[in-house]
Amino acid sequence: MFNLDQYLDTTGKRINTALNKLLPPESAQPPTIHKAMRYSIFAGGKRIRPVLTLAACEAVGGKTAAAMPLACAVECIHTYSLIHDDLPCMDDDDLRRGRPTNHKVFGEGVAVLAGDALLTQAFLLAAKKPEYVTELARASGSLGLIAGQVQDLENESRAATLTEVKTTHRNKTGALINASIRLGAMAGHATPAQLKRLTRYGDDLGLAFQVIDDILDATSTKEIMGKSVRADEKNEKSTFPKLLGIEKSRTYAAELIADAHDQLRSFGKKAEPLRAIADFFLTRKH
Amino acid sequence: MFNLDQYLDTTGKRINTALNKLLPPESAQPPTIHKAMRYSIFAGGKRIRPVLTLAACEAVGGKTAAAMPLACAVECIHTYSLIHDDLPCMDDDDLRRGRPTNHKVFGEGVAVLAGDALLTQAFLLAAKKPEYVTELARASGSLGLIAGQVQDLENESRAATLTEVKTTHRNKTGALINASIRLGAMAGHATPAQLKRLTRYGDDLGLAFQVIDDILDATSTKEIMGKSVRADEKNEKSTFPKLLGIEKSRTYAAELIADAHDQLRSFGKKAEPLRAIADFFLTRKH
Repeated sequence: MFNLDQYLDTTGKRINTALNKLLPPESAQPPTIHKAMRYSIFAGGKRIRPVLTLAACEAVGGKTAAAMPLACAVECIHTYSLIHDDLPCMDDDDLRRGRPTNHKVFGEGVAVLAGDALLTQAFLLAAKKPEYVTELARASGSLGLIAGQVQDLENESRAATLTEVKTTHRNKTGALINASIRLGAMAGHATPAQLKRLTRYGDDLGLAFQVIDDILDATSTKEIMGKSVRADEKNEKSTFPKLLGIEKSRTYAAELIADAHDQLRSFGKKAEPLRAIADFFLTRKH
Repeated sequence: MFNLDQYLDTTGKRINTALNKLLPPESAQPPTIHKAMRYSIFAGGKRIRPVLTLAACEAVGGKTAAAMPLACAVECIHTYSLIHDDLPCMDDDDLRRGRPTNHKVFGEGVAVLAGDALLTQAFLLAAKKPEYVTELARASGSLGLIAGQVQDLENESRAATLTEVKTTHRNKTGALINASIRLGAMAGHATPAQLKRLTRYGDDLGLAFQVIDDILDATSTKEIMGKSVRADEKNEKSTFPKLLGIEKSRTYAAELIADAHDQLRSFGKKAEPLRAIADFFLTRKH
């Protein structure tokens, strides 16, 4: 029986060690920016995206050491997007993972720059092969993650359709989750057929992640989540629960995860971590 | 006799054509972000950095077509840094190149994202070779351009020394100007000796650019500059004119440009554009 908690714990520690080694130290000049970068990188995130990178590499029989700089790169992108998303001119959040957000500690100017620096650092970490850089830039750029953030801003205070909400989330959350998986598969020398299946697994997972996120925002508490809840309601955002209801949203997430499992059928035992992560997505409480 | 005006005009037009082709169209979803990116990219900048990329490629006998995506990449980085620099939480500027700044037109949230998107786009354009990505990321990251912006914020309202001001400017302005030149040389297959000389030429140029910028901010008018002046005085910034006086600052800039010329001695006629650009740096009025 595969133990996901243990896998997440061990792999998370390896990722933290690598991030600590690959990011400039706090003492690098000027210390302010390096402290701000590390404050948010080491804020106790679950490392889901980099874990997916390493697990996808394993699933195709690759060596995870080759995927580690890419795992760190996707975590840098994820963290930068949170820092900028939390800014007063965006979602205006004071709390993230139970701690004050970056701009609350370092000021808005430094928070903008810390995000910029982590985004730039990601490409330094992915520089080894042109296809890595292209994959990461497409997923994070104005046709991927950033498209989703703009659509998210624009969906506030207006009635978005289910199709629009899906597009927004495929961009905002799905693109980077997908790239995390694809980069790991690429570093593990996946065949085109393997890459295709893992891409669909990633699509399913990315969308399911956001459906669950919406459900948790609508039903959980600040204490359990470690961040403000009912933000979507406050911002009058169109969400899956609002459009489908809580129960139908849960069913939809379950269908996506079932399809994700189908994609992994041919991978055998090596895909155990990916299977367990898919189930974890569906059952997570924060 | 080399005609710089004509060279800047012709080369600038080629760069604009390439940028127009290489950036997503305004109609790409969501249009807001692509309009915002293009608003600042096509705001009438002098294209000095991408021109340097192409001129450095020419100086080592390379084909400029190979350097064009890199020229566009450095312009994307430069433009992103201006958008973020102009934000209320940074320099708080309403005017840039004679037009309202990005956040004045599109709002702060979209301006942050437009900067992020241009930064990401730059790496998509530089993805062809690992050494291009590494060069660009180092120059723009927390040990380069961003270090300079943080140091610039920290030098406000405090008495920085001449050494500190030099370090700030080597990072804030010098690093990207230097990378612009080096990327062009790399695309043109420069020898290690050529690259070394052009790197020093770039160091000289980058520092001279900022010395002149400080002098212009202290002596020119809003009408001539197309942006607010006396910003340094308002922010009580330590500048070259403040630390050395206007005349000694001019002498220092002239010495840097003389050294830049020395570096080009062995390049012959192919370095005419680089020579003319060095002289232009010294004599520019805005």
